[in-house]
Amino acid sequence: MPVKIFLNEDEIPREWYNIAADMPTPMQPPLHPGTHQPVGPEDLAPVFPMNLIEQEVSTERWIKIPDQVLDKLLLWRPTPLYRAVNLEKFLNCPVKIYYKNEGVSPAGSHKPNTAIPQAYYNKVFGVKRIATETGAGQWGSALSFACSQFGLEAKVYMVRISYEQKPYRRLMMNTWGATCVPSPSTETEAGRKVLALDPNSPGSLGIAISEAVEDAVTSEAQGRPLTRYALGSVLNHVLLHQTIIGLEAQKQLAQVGDYPDIVIGCAGGGSNFAGISFPFVRDKIAGKQVQIIAVEPMSCPTMTRGPFLYDFGDTMQMTPLLPMHTLGHAFIPAPVHAGGLRYHGMAPLVSQLILDGLVEPRAVYQLDTFKAGVTWARTEGFISAPETNHALAAVFQEAKKAKEEGKEKVILVNWSGHGLVDLAAYDAFFQGKLVDYEMPQDEIELALKALEGFPKPNF
Amino acid sequence: MPVKIFLNEDEIPREWYNIAADMPTPMQPPLHPGTHQPVGPEDLAPVFPMNLIEQEVSTERWIKIPDQVLDKLLLWRPTPLYRAVNLEKFLNCPVKIYYKNEGVSPAGSHKPNTAIPQAYYNKVFGVKRIATETGAGQWGSALSFACSQFGLEAKVYMVRISYEQKPYRRLMMNTWGATCVPSPSTETEAGRKVLALDPNSPGSLGIAISEAVEDAVTSEAQGRPLTRYALGSVLNHVLLHQTIIGLEAQKQLAQVGDYPDIVIGCAGGGSNFAGISFPFVRDKIAGKQVQIIAVEPMSCPTMTRGPFLYDFGDTMQMTPLLPMHTLGHAFIPAPVHAGGLRYHGMAPLVSQLILDGLVEPRAVYQLDTFKAGVTWARTEGFISAPETNHALAAVFQEAKKAKEEGKEKVILVNWSGHGLVDLAAYDAFFQGKLVDYEMPQDEIELALKALEGFPKPNF
Repeated sequence: MPVKIFLNEDEIPREWYNIAADMPTPMQPPLHPGTHQPVGPEDLAPVFPMNLIEQEVSTERWIKIPDQVLDKLLLWRPTPLYRAVNLEKFLNCPVKIYYKNEGVSPAGSHKPNTAIPQAYYNKVFGVKRIATETGAGQWGSALSFACSQFGLEAKVYMVRISYEQKPYRRLMMNTWGATCVPSPSTETEAGRKVLALDPNSPGSLGIAISEAVEDAVTSEAQGRPLTRYALGSVLNHVLLHQTIIGLEAQKQLAQVGDYPDIVIGCAGGGSNFAGISFPFVRDKIAGKQVQIIAVEPMSCPTMTRGPFLYDFGDTMQMTPLLPMHTLGHAFIPAPVHAGGLRYHGMAPLVSQLILDGLVEPRAVYQLDTFKAGVTWARTEGFISAPETNHALAAVFQEAKKAKEEGKEKVILVNWSGHGLVDLAAYDAFFQGKLVDYEMPQDEIELALKALEGFPKPNF
Repeated sequence: MPVKIFLNEDEIPREWYNIAADMPTPMQPPLHPGTHQPVGPEDLAPVFPMNLIEQEVSTERWIKIPDQVLDKLLLWRPTPLYRAVNLEKFLNCPVKIYYKNEGVSPAGSHKPNTAIPQAYYNKVFGVKRIATETGAGQWGSALSFACSQFGLEAKVYMVRISYEQKPYRRLMMNTWGATCVPSPSTETEAGRKVLALDPNSPGSLGIAISEAVEDAVTSEAQGRPLTRYALGSVLNHVLLHQTIIGLEAQKQLAQVGDYPDIVIGCAGGGSNFAGISFPFVRDKIAGKQVQIIAVEPMSCPTMTRGPFLYDFGDTMQMTPLLPMHTLGHAFIPAPVHAGGLRYHGMAPLVSQLILDGLVEPRAVYQLDTFKAGVTWARTEGFISAPETNHALAAVFQEAKKAKEEGKEKVILVNWSGHGLVDLAAYDAFFQGKLVDYEMPQDEIELALKALEGFPKPNF
């Protein structure tokens, strides 16, 4: 029985799986932030290249992966599927645990799976420069890597507090040739406005998104090379690109004659979860028995406690309104939360699948995630990203449950990235600085008041 | 043509290759630091477990890898052999470049290849606790990982300046359950002596080795669990464990029908270089045409400018005298040097192979190493450890030479580790803080004066 199940390069999936083709409930359209009417492709054209907009709205089940994209993905894909033999022995529960190791990419996470095609489609469309935002830096570094592969300029607006506390992520971006500035910056209207109110603003993902979008839509007028914006999660085309994870895992599990009873991924905006799970959701829609669990932090309980509403993608209300589980676009997780997955909303595709009962959301406590991560490191060896530890906490829960029920189960989990550049969070854990935290209900209700009077999606 | 050449787990080498069996010149023995007589196994017994001492002096050609070691190595081995297709296109030279990716291990480098067997043999011998030193932290983190796999305690004495400047490596050790203290510490006689002279001592590898050895040999008397010392390079058994790299590479190259004209590795103490090259040195001894290059920094030119002498392994003159190329045990590289490979000596095995004309040493300039690393990151994607960049600089030189000579060549290089925890060195490079530096001859001669009157090895 091998510990690692490889897929030959000629077995790499040649198409992405678009779950929009199989959704039991059709997706509800994004709405224009001003008119509240469904947005059309032309509304998005100043922000994204048209070839990606077409993917965003496509309902084709299979979308061909361009050869030039495959060539770049082959730098680290297919990724190995591991059997967590050491952890299984340690847990002593009737479970087989398989994990897909997305930490082997140059940026150390699943993010390059979409950064590479996004850079490619921008390049093909004639774009010369991509602007984006990043929080802790996973996405910014992945996009920087992808842009270096296609000879595009990359400009990353990085939340200031992360920029200062996580210099290694910025240095990764620099090594790949990208420019990274702390946000709020003086380079955009949005940034200057925030700085005028608070020169010491630590920044937020919402502000950084606003800066990057403004950079993209104003570039031509301001004499910069043709620029578009890129997002690392939430949107349909981003989740589409990540499905290569689950498609590979299906082939690898078939090699060893297994099929999961449970598929687990952590979910911030939803992209790595969608990547591992959507091919299995497809099987589930077709009648297969499989439990699919999306795991989020108790301190940012978007799926488990946020209602399904139309909300903005960003804090500054510049993006279209998306139908999604949300805690309100002004939501910021409590400072005690160290483990990523801080986005206020959840990808519309994932949100709809939760409503349809195909995906089971679960919130876990912070201390359980780090305990799971430390046990993982001391058994499987690899040190996980704090985000990934949320998925691992659910693996531990399911293993224990299998033992209690006396049932044998096969668990598949997405090991979405390593934590070597995020060790400060482990340090806080070891020093006893982290606590468990649950969002108070009145705070959630208060944050959602901003959405009163906005259109409601069907539920 | 695949970009990555995998080896199935059942094809992993089951034996290490011991080059001592094939050396054209027999190895000269280590000498006791006091008597200057050859040391016997019993002299080393307080420091290392006897099963490792037996490996250290073995002349058997093939040494079986224990099943329990193989089980742990399978967590990340066999490592993929990559074809550097993007770099080849960029260089536009008549070369095929293969690289062995040792960065996929949990600790991110080749070091666990020997940390795992060292922990295993200590465990089997009844040792409960291992003491070691670490400079930048690569070895300390690898040993911490290995000890966690076998349920051993690990105590790491980390050079104080690195301890303070590189918190991520220490955090990796903590995550794997090890204790890491800055050296000089107050926990050993050696440390207290240094602190009495200079309470602000930044520490050095030599001091840290002395502390770890003292910890090991005094543990029983001081009521600590049975402790032995472990070293991450230089010694015969360490190099032996690394040969799995080259043995795998030979099988992988055979899969694609290639054999290298040139094998390249960087060399500090010599272990990763030995790991990739010794199986090819064996072929060369048997008559095969292959050029084998060990690459070191101009600012620590042990092989290219250090004479072959008997010298101590540590600064405090506690270890046996080893026959090796050395700059003198008191040597410390100039502060401008950012790229690792700082050890004053070179592994006796590698040193002897240089004398015998089987290995070609080469020193490279610091700025060339970082330029090579940045180009690598922007073509192949992965960010290399600063040490690894020395090997890459030589790859660039050889590619250029092949073009000038109009000859097609196959190059194999050991990509010994990633640089994600060492990005501060890249930052210094981008900020223009690094310069090229050559050791002045009079400084080398001065450092070697300390060895006057000591026995000389045959040359």
